[in-house]
Amino acid sequence: MQALLIVAHGSRRASSNDEVRALAERLRGKLGGEYPMVEAAFLELAEPLIPEGIVRCAEQGAERVTVVPYFLAAGRHVVEDIPAEIAKAKAQLPQLEVRLAQHIGASSMVDALISDAARCVADGVD
Amino acid sequence: MQALLIVAHGSRRASSNDEVRALAERLRGKLGGEYPMVEAAFLELAEPLIPEGIVRCAEQGAERVTVVPYFLAAGRHVVEDIPAEIAKAKAQLPQLEVRLAQHIGASSMVDALISDAARCVADGVD
Repeated sequence: MQALLIVAHGSRRASSNDEVRALAERLRGKLGGEYPMVEAAFLELAEPLIPEGIVRCAEQGAERVTVVPYFLAAGRHVVEDIPAEIAKAKAQLPQLEVRLAQHIGASSMVDALISDAARCVADGVD
Repeated sequence: MQALLIVAHGSRRASSNDEVRALAERLRGKLGGEYPMVEAAFLELAEPLIPEGIVRCAEQGAERVTVVPYFLAAGRHVVEDIPAEIAKAKAQLPQLEVRLAQHIGASSMVDALISDAARCVADGVD
């Protein structure tokens, strides 16, 4: 079984972390066959942290975990910190396959996302 | 004339800030009539900072600036810090209309973005 682990930075605002958890829950039904398991984890400031999130996926039966950095820019967190946290989990579970996907800011869909967000003031949503 | 100002956090990695500037440049041609001016600014660690970015738009002829927070979560930066920086610019240019759009993480397109990013390991891109 494959798991998708959405990794966000983590915030001191609980509501911000809850947004990420809600996103994982929402995607659980949407990605269907490819990723029957979708979980959230955090680099810091919120639980579960990345190694714990990966271990939890394995405990629930995942044989492969794809980590998607929920980050817009390829800053230090994406380039250094997340790989280092993944390495900690792999040291605990060497038989588990853990793959690092590109950070979501690298998707060509970001342009459309910005247009969409900008529209949400024009319509008086904000 | 309307301007779209993409506001990112800013990083110590120059390449990360350059990604945001390249995004603004790329969008300049795409949003056409609605936003003939698309610029980037940063909350911290990179130039221009938000007040300077807003003032620059006005100096280039913008009568209205729509600020899109290039943030995924509604953390402290989105809820408190960006509005405070916008207020600094408005104090300098009270006649300029500055509107705050929703942060891009609030767009319903985020789900599709995550699926797209996850695919970029399956295809061996990463």
